[in-house]
Amino acid sequence: MVLLLSGGLDSATCLAMARAAGAEVLALTIDYNQRHRRELEAAEGLARTLGARRHLVLPLDLRAFGGSALTGAMPVPKGGLRPGIPVTYVPARNTVFLSVALAWGEAAGASDLLIGVNALDYSGYPDCRPAFVAAFEALANLATKAGVEGTATYRVHTPLLCLSKADIVRAGADLGLDFARTWSCYDPTRDGRHCGLCDSCRLRKRGFAEAGVPDPTDYAA
Amino acid sequence: MVLLLSGGLDSATCLAMARAAGAEVLALTIDYNQRHRRELEAAEGLARTLGARRHLVLPLDLRAFGGSALTGAMPVPKGGLRPGIPVTYVPARNTVFLSVALAWGEAAGASDLLIGVNALDYSGYPDCRPAFVAAFEALANLATKAGVEGTATYRVHTPLLCLSKADIVRAGADLGLDFARTWSCYDPTRDGRHCGLCDSCRLRKRGFAEAGVPDPTDYAA
Repeated sequence: MVLLLSGGLDSATCLAMARAAGAEVLALTIDYNQRHRRELEAAEGLARTLGARRHLVLPLDLRAFGGSALTGAMPVPKGGLRPGIPVTYVPARNTVFLSVALAWGEAAGASDLLIGVNALDYSGYPDCRPAFVAAFEALANLATKAGVEGTATYRVHTPLLCLSKADIVRAGADLGLDFARTWSCYDPTRDGRHCGLCDSCRLRKRGFAEAGVPDPTDYAA
Repeated sequence: MVLLLSGGLDSATCLAMARAAGAEVLALTIDYNQRHRRELEAAEGLARTLGARRHLVLPLDLRAFGGSALTGAMPVPKGGLRPGIPVTYVPARNTVFLSVALAWGEAAGASDLLIGVNALDYSGYPDCRPAFVAAFEALANLATKAGVEGTATYRVHTPLLCLSKADIVRAGADLGLDFARTWSCYDPTRDGRHCGLCDSCRLRKRGFAEAGVPDPTDYAA
């Protein structure tokens, strides 16, 4: 299978799940010139320690387009989660990521794609919803030679879709995932710590607290 | 609008059509590490002479995955068009390209995407069919903040979908397109000419011949 690995808590848990199930994993990390490039190192460490069969870090510079606090000059919000789609939304990011995963999958003969999107404790992104995932799956089978010729049926697996962040932390802990190797923060401090205040840090903190699992993260705040 | 510009005859004609209609064009060329990199230069010349508002050449190395004669070691067929999907098919290429165009479109506030796919005189690629285009359009409106919030409705325009190659040549000629600036060949000769034998060269030749328009191309065969 092709697994999208950002280096965060969610995709790391997906990788641990897939490996525990005995899957051969092609781990795909997109270097989209994100503000939190630190997650790329986390992805490399996770792919190595969890035994991905291959790990590719593919440059695809979404900063060329901007339009997000993660790829442009606007600041990452630190005031707490609010309703609506936040400025950390990156235009069409998961569409781009799944498309690239599909390209690798078809080239490598892998028809299972796995992405750690989550429709509960998420940041309000439209490309994390079940309707999006279903539409992409339908597209994948129309878009590809393997899909059209019937030699493969593409499936988009989203094992975290209906889990809370606490559920995800528990699942990772049960699989022995070393959470210290994962990176969530959108806006790391200069000394390389999780800021503790961005939406992603807040969701991470709350997930560990609600799961009753020790949080190894070094937060600056 | 965001227009996918490969540098070939079809996308050049699309660009000429869009400019003739007065559209402001963000021209997007993907450097996917294709065998026929010569088309990237053609795209730059076309964007400049036809007055694209901006032109971006975005590196996205699909050769990292292989799986195609255009991105791997296998040779480009020269024996003539055959039924079925040829080895020059690049896994999920148009899905990836439209996704990246959508990312730019959303970031730039452009809801029209234009791609020069063609369901008649084409090479049998699954991601050039109307069903694929419709599925991508549906996905785009589910995948994006602008689509979900209703501030934009994404449309995928395919003005060449039901034209023959001869029709495309005629349309380009009517708009004064300088065909010598376009590049079609999948496997350029060492001295920088169109090979004349690959599927893309054969479709190009036939299109000019059937249209009765002089073909300025320097074919090696």
